[in-house]
Amino acid sequence: MAARERLTAISKHLDHRPLATPRSPIGNSPPNNPPFPSTRSLYTENKPKMSTQPEHPTLLIPGPIEFDDAVLQSMSHYSESHVGPAFVATFGETLSMLRKLFQTTDTASQPFVLSGSGTLGWDLVAANLAEPGDDVLVLHTGYFADSFAACFETYGAKPTQLKAPIGSRPQLPEIEKALGEKKYKILTVTHVDTSTGVLSELKALSELVHRVSPETLLIVDGVCSVGSENIEFDNWKLDGVITASQKGIGCPAGLSISMYSGRAMDVFKSRKTPPGSYFASMKNWLPIMQNYEAKKPSYFATPSPQLIHALNTSLTQILSRPLSDRFAAHQEASQKIKKAIADLGLKQLATDPADQANGMTAIYLPEGVKAPELLPNLFKKGVVFAGGLHKEIAAKYIRFGHMGVSVTDPKRNDIDKAIKALETGLSDVGYQKA
Amino acid sequence: MAARERLTAISKHLDHRPLATPRSPIGNSPPNNPPFPSTRSLYTENKPKMSTQPEHPTLLIPGPIEFDDAVLQSMSHYSESHVGPAFVATFGETLSMLRKLFQTTDTASQPFVLSGSGTLGWDLVAANLAEPGDDVLVLHTGYFADSFAACFETYGAKPTQLKAPIGSRPQLPEIEKALGEKKYKILTVTHVDTSTGVLSELKALSELVHRVSPETLLIVDGVCSVGSENIEFDNWKLDGVITASQKGIGCPAGLSISMYSGRAMDVFKSRKTPPGSYFASMKNWLPIMQNYEAKKPSYFATPSPQLIHALNTSLTQILSRPLSDRFAAHQEASQKIKKAIADLGLKQLATDPADQANGMTAIYLPEGVKAPELLPNLFKKGVVFAGGLHKEIAAKYIRFGHMGVSVTDPKRNDIDKAIKALETGLSDVGYQKA
Repeated sequence: MAARERLTAISKHLDHRPLATPRSPIGNSPPNNPPFPSTRSLYTENKPKMSTQPEHPTLLIPGPIEFDDAVLQSMSHYSESHVGPAFVATFGETLSMLRKLFQTTDTASQPFVLSGSGTLGWDLVAANLAEPGDDVLVLHTGYFADSFAACFETYGAKPTQLKAPIGSRPQLPEIEKALGEKKYKILTVTHVDTSTGVLSELKALSELVHRVSPETLLIVDGVCSVGSENIEFDNWKLDGVITASQKGIGCPAGLSISMYSGRAMDVFKSRKTPPGSYFASMKNWLPIMQNYEAKKPSYFATPSPQLIHALNTSLTQILSRPLSDRFAAHQEASQKIKKAIADLGLKQLATDPADQANGMTAIYLPEGVKAPELLPNLFKKGVVFAGGLHKEIAAKYIRFGHMGVSVTDPKRNDIDKAIKALETGLSDVGYQKA
Repeated sequence: MAARERLTAISKHLDHRPLATPRSPIGNSPPNNPPFPSTRSLYTENKPKMSTQPEHPTLLIPGPIEFDDAVLQSMSHYSESHVGPAFVATFGETLSMLRKLFQTTDTASQPFVLSGSGTLGWDLVAANLAEPGDDVLVLHTGYFADSFAACFETYGAKPTQLKAPIGSRPQLPEIEKALGEKKYKILTVTHVDTSTGVLSELKALSELVHRVSPETLLIVDGVCSVGSENIEFDNWKLDGVITASQKGIGCPAGLSISMYSGRAMDVFKSRKTPPGSYFASMKNWLPIMQNYEAKKPSYFATPSPQLIHALNTSLTQILSRPLSDRFAAHQEASQKIKKAIADLGLKQLATDPADQANGMTAIYLPEGVKAPELLPNLFKKGVVFAGGLHKEIAAKYIRFGHMGVSVTDPKRNDIDKAIKALETGLSDVGYQKA
């Protein structure tokens, strides 16, 4: 096939399917999932041409995010044996690069990359680091703490949730008090809760935990923070950070990615009971991860070579520049967005600026504006935002994700376009700043 | 970027990494993973040019397999919201197509597609259909029955293995006897054991189970058979078939795919204890799968839109022709390969022709020929075979996978090339037919 025909074939395949008719959320549906108009031409107007991707609405939800061309192309890597030397080298290199992303040089730290999703990270923690009957303190800043607690219960651990009002986070004195009341094997914190955009402070939290309950493992749910927020695994003495591929790391969904301290691995190795999960068993995966990183072929379950190639490409790009620049770029974009939102007279769920994530913003809708009106209007302008997710207030807010290439690639104009779309979109649906 | 430059960029990215130096298998490593030479030009000689994929050695292991260009291109689909109507439609359509692949029209049948691997299917079965203390009969035809049994133990079920000599399978009278000795909640059978190439007969087995132990659920491990062997889910009254994306279905690895009968789902729904896994909990996933198939957005954990697009493309291709043609093509290629192997004076692990898989062949090496000599020789000829996996005899055999486009795409010459490579390769390493 000639080059031109091939590209036509690709474009044809990647072409838009007919967009669907309005749907009502039901059951476990995320609320406020609006009907999208099927108009295509409208959103291409103010969009700079991407290189190898066909034109499409800019995805600015808190994950999955927009992907770099080279990352997406890596997804089409030709088939390789999962135990052949070429792929083993790629996987091993990827695991080693994760150490840099998490800022850990302690050789006892252990990375894991499994086929799955961010959720699988909870199973890794709950089925391997907790044992039945263990007490776990779950700091609650939104939807995802409830789920992490449910995961612990599945494997027989006893989670206690410390909740904060929506838009806030549990404060250090309360946490100190809770840690004094019971001996907790594990404390979990959601670094950025995707449902609220609330950012938790890890350094001071870790100092507190190490001071008042030094045996407690500090586990971070970094699904919506790794790659967009600074995480100093060694310096902050973290015991585990779980994440996924499709948010700040900028790789398509399909991978559970995590890092554990030597201390956490020792807790795992000294379990009295076998791990509670088979697919998420560190007993099954630890030798595999160690072998891959030592560039030795190894098999427990078949990894996805294409996703690992994409992750490798994404990490190579991320690590080609200082991480501090990356986090500064996210902070800068976030400040710009938060200022624009304040200028529009809108409020965020996260009230205290210190509690506001740098990779996403959860925005209360103004009185009278409904997400099923606003979101399709934004879509027409070529911008995809997400509806609310926190069950108590889902209909009252929208979410704007600003991670990865949308903030780090100077060739894109994603953030300015989204701010502009939000301004005119709100006006279109009748909102006027008071 | 112009079309030509874009393709150059893609090719460059997909280019070969330097192939690694010899490695010894250790720990959990699959034995006989040979050192591969780093010579590139050698394997391109007798290979017809593929369309959009760069030249690469033809992967003929029992999964992952070679992929069709359009399937691989779907992996690079631009980013979409996992709850947006376009992707929800694609996922829903994919689930519906799976019903056709499994030949089930019973609306009570339930498909699941999760991010993970074939192994995750064992967790789905063991954590949802078995309860702690339940007896399970595991028919053993190789490596994978041991692992499935270990998975059941993880979730508290009590597996009993019924083993056959290597290269054979448990016979119906033995199975009938075993079913008479205990009340088994579940019987599992590996349709094709990837470690031995032994094919199990499902129809007669199902008739036996329904006759002598009608309450026992019949669960098929079809990881190495779905897409390459005929499976009539409804006609054969199966209760569950688990599989993965990267073998007969011809989609890159990263998905756990399975189908359960209404009867199996009723057993799940009448559990006395909660499911033993969180990530593999049908309680968490059932409403999501039902919503996606009804084209309603739904969220438990983020699926991989790119992998789902690739699966959609692959299923669309498979279902565009009669399934019977597909299975006949696999049978025909398999017969050709098995005849060539016999002509070479070689023996298969599976002794009885009725027990030989149609999508792979496990071949005993002749006396004096070692896999670490033969496999790199084949690699130089552009063909990748796998070493042995069954722990008792791993060094004594090799495996040849012949599934998917390698047997169904007339433009490829994969099978003939592989047979020729095997003939000359054996000769190169000193083998002469007695």
